[in-house]
Amino acid sequence: MKASEIASFVGGRLEGPDIEVRGLSSYRDAQEGEITFVANSSWLRHSTGASVIILKEGMPPVEGKSCIFVKDPLEAVIRLAYMFWKEDYGTGISGMAVVSPKAHIGKDVVIREFAVVEDDVVLEDGVVVMPFVYIGKGSRVGEKTVLFPHVVVYPGTMIGKRCRIHAGTVLGADGFGYIERDGKRVKIPQIGRVVIGDDVEIGANTCIDRATFGKTEIGAGTKLDNLIQIGHNVKVGKDCAFAAQVGISGSVEIGDRVLMGGQVGIADHVRIGSDVKIAAKAGVPGNIRDGEVVIGGFPAIPASRWKRIYGAMLKLPEIYSLFRKLTKGERDA
Amino acid sequence: MKASEIASFVGGRLEGPDIEVRGLSSYRDAQEGEITFVANSSWLRHSTGASVIILKEGMPPVEGKSCIFVKDPLEAVIRLAYMFWKEDYGTGISGMAVVSPKAHIGKDVVIREFAVVEDDVVLEDGVVVMPFVYIGKGSRVGEKTVLFPHVVVYPGTMIGKRCRIHAGTVLGADGFGYIERDGKRVKIPQIGRVVIGDDVEIGANTCIDRATFGKTEIGAGTKLDNLIQIGHNVKVGKDCAFAAQVGISGSVEIGDRVLMGGQVGIADHVRIGSDVKIAAKAGVPGNIRDGEVVIGGFPAIPASRWKRIYGAMLKLPEIYSLFRKLTKGERDA
Amino acid sequence: MKASEIASFVGGRLEGPDIEVRGLSSYRDAQEGEITFVANSSWLRHSTGASVIILKEGMPPVEGKSCIFVKDPLEAVIRLAYMFWKEDYGTGISGMAVVSPKAHIGKDVVIREFAVVEDDVVLEDGVVVMPFVYIGKGSRVGEKTVLFPHVVVYPGTMIGKRCRIHAGTVLGADGFGYIERDGKRVKIPQIGRVVIGDDVEIGANTCIDRATFGKTEIGAGTKLDNLIQIGHNVKVGKDCAFAAQVGISGSVEIGDRVLMGGQVGIADHVRIGSDVKIAAKAGVPGNIRDGEVVIGGFPAIPASRWKRIYGAMLKLPEIYSLFRKLTKGERDA
Repeated sequence: MKASEIASFVGGRLEGPDIEVRGLSSYRDAQEGEITFVANSSWLRHSTGASVIILKEGMPPVEGKSCIFVKDPLEAVIRLAYMFWKEDYGTGISGMAVVSPKAHIGKDVVIREFAVVEDDVVLEDGVVVMPFVYIGKGSRVGEKTVLFPHVVVYPGTMIGKRCRIHAGTVLGADGFGYIERDGKRVKIPQIGRVVIGDDVEIGANTCIDRATFGKTEIGAGTKLDNLIQIGHNVKVGKDCAFAAQVGISGSVEIGDRVLMGGQVGIADHVRIGSDVKIAAKAGVPGNIRDGEVVIGGFPAIPASRWKRIYGAMLKLPEIYSLFRKLTKGERDA
Repeated sequence: MKASEIASFVGGRLEGPDIEVRGLSSYRDAQEGEITFVANSSWLRHSTGASVIILKEGMPPVEGKSCIFVKDPLEAVIRLAYMFWKEDYGTGISGMAVVSPKAHIGKDVVIREFAVVEDDVVLEDGVVVMPFVYIGKGSRVGEKTVLFPHVVVYPGTMIGKRCRIHAGTVLGADGFGYIERDGKRVKIPQIGRVVIGDDVEIGANTCIDRATFGKTEIGAGTKLDNLIQIGHNVKVGKDCAFAAQVGISGSVEIGDRVLMGGQVGIADHVRIGSDVKIAAKAGVPGNIRDGEVVIGGFPAIPASRWKRIYGAMLKLPEIYSLFRKLTKGERDA
Repeated sequence: MKASEIASFVGGRLEGPDIEVRGLSSYRDAQEGEITFVANSSWLRHSTGASVIILKEGMPPVEGKSCIFVKDPLEAVIRLAYMFWKEDYGTGISGMAVVSPKAHIGKDVVIREFAVVEDDVVLEDGVVVMPFVYIGKGSRVGEKTVLFPHVVVYPGTMIGKRCRIHAGTVLGADGFGYIERDGKRVKIPQIGRVVIGDDVEIGANTCIDRATFGKTEIGAGTKLDNLIQIGHNVKVGKDCAFAAQVGISGSVEIGDRVLMGGQVGIADHVRIGSDVKIAAKAGVPGNIRDGEVVIGGFPAIPASRWKRIYGAMLKLPEIYSLFRKLTKGERDA
């Protein structure tokens, strides 16, 4: 593809030679023949191996490079990325997969080698089941959803349309529910299920437990990163995004558009409102209202309050010296 | 099943119509025709779609619902859950599994499609091996243990009776052991093994590393949640319960009936007594005595002390103001 | 093998009976007929079941045991461990694997049952591909690298020579990249790749995401433990070692020989110099210079400063009492 074609595709203006572009890469990793972009003018302090650069209208051209000027470089590069993005899942239903005759398989479904689809499973049109995927009895997978290799879907799980579930993720394993009797833990049978909405993306090796009774739910449009734990009976709202290694304990309820940084932990039965933002590593022991921003520490507290406490904490050695001085008489006595 | 039959099964008293019950669900998720329970009278502020409710003797009946009154609603609902709990693993040894002729397979063993059982493995009576399970050479699995899809058992691992090991869990991968030589890490071969007691349940995508030399051990009756890390040479006692994402470093020793919340971390070589309780997210750098309760912070400290420190921490901004006032003269000088 | 043969193999001196040794174990787990070692004389307060003990020259012999005295017991036991270390991966290319005719397979490659190798994959000489491994289109695996069961290699991933990638690890799943549009997350296609250097070892169930554009890189000689998250576009240098459950956010750059304890979290776009040491559970929000030691807390701060703050924090209840006394007049007013 020529630089001029890309410029017209992203609605930009080309300055410099109209070279052939063979790939899209990051500013730092790009090599000759590749196109990249600049999100922030500070990047220009470093050099790039790219031959073509997408820049914001108004920035100076970069010497020796073909430059495409656009209103919003990030927007332009994402449009471009969609063009370069090709995923090849294979086609058809492999003779080396095990598909129950009692399963209902839609049109244009792909089932790859060594997949197992149990009785009474429904795979809607266009579903992709990669190798080593296990789909337990009575589960349902919505249109065009892709299950990457090694996804495990326990029996009775419902998955929406256009979801992407990455490798090694486990949906519907038993919730962690026991009662204590004479110092031993007696298992509470976990007979609920997992229900995932449409347009959900889930990263690799994430675990979403089935409900003890009833449902564990992930709302439409929500995005979960890798290695996340979602406990039994949790309800996550719509359009949330949780970074890697977040842990949500049992029976937590979370509103819509909630954002969490990595390694956040939420205690069981907590209710979190909509539009809440929780910073990485925070531990949340209690309810949070709509729209609040929560950062740092355990137990986590609202951002504004934590900032003041943390600022004072950094002065603790000096405060402690003063304390020593003020209490010297008492200690000497 | 009729409501009256359930009432007599759980030893309770039915009030209201004797309707047909088609399922058990949570208070919030239950729908018409289903039965649910009330653990706490505060739940009654919300409504439920259930048709039948199990309540504690002495609570008021709920209008429009059939109510079953019992002494202990949780106990009753667990009994009931066992009745509704049916897991269907399939039967027999699949012709599409790879089972070494040198493996010893007991009676009534289930081995599903695409499982691999290597030489000298022993599967005792009633073991269930789901699809994509790998059992390495010389491992042993006790009676009636269930290995869910994608469990990986490295060579030489011993697993007790009646265990449940959930999808994606890895038993016996190499411990993280290296020595430094000239700025490089040289591998210490990990030639020990993993030994799991009877009645252990392990969640999904958890990792228990083999010992460098000797054994990594999980005691009988212990329950581990999802995404937990157990390092090489760790000894976990009996009847412990660790929540998701806990990390136990190498050579830690843990007593019996120890409880840990989610995301707890224990430093290497630490000894933790029996009956210890450690709150979520705590980081434990040193030994803990029998029966202690440990909460919060890193390094974690005993609960009573931490509560006082934390309470004072919340006052730090005010303390700091006073400090500023008291030291104003010095700063002005 | 006789104790005398082991003594001469490790360059040591035998004292006591020249018995037959049938295995190597840890000091605590060793049984009769086994050999063990003492790294530290404090271990001698406990007894061992071992028949032969490797001790440091100058230590007293242990009564009733055959003792081998050496200059460096750890060094000696590691040499010995290499001798006892036998891994049996099987041989040849299984007829029950699916290997694309368009893949390039080197000499002495092992591909086990139920592995999937897609088009245009290159497996160099001596590569081992265990059961249930998936290797996506166009990936390359270097000489003698071992992929343990259930490793998932997404398309286009490059893996170096002599690597060990443990069970359940996922290389090259999508980075967690979205832009917000009207309260919804729109996916940024993740079209980059993962590049792993030579001599890298990666534990079980770890996730390394592909770059959005360009490369996510792990430098030669680096060792990653289990359940680690490495985000998109991260660059990890050479000879680093990260303990379990570490989380590295997107676009972080890390130098060489960096050590991290368990459950450390690094915020996105942070730069960490070479030879940095970061203690377990630290949360790192900003850049760290070469050679710095960082411990505790969130946000993490340099060790020396944190120690002073933490020391004062333990005194907070007393400081707060004084504060109450000093401000009593104001509160009464």
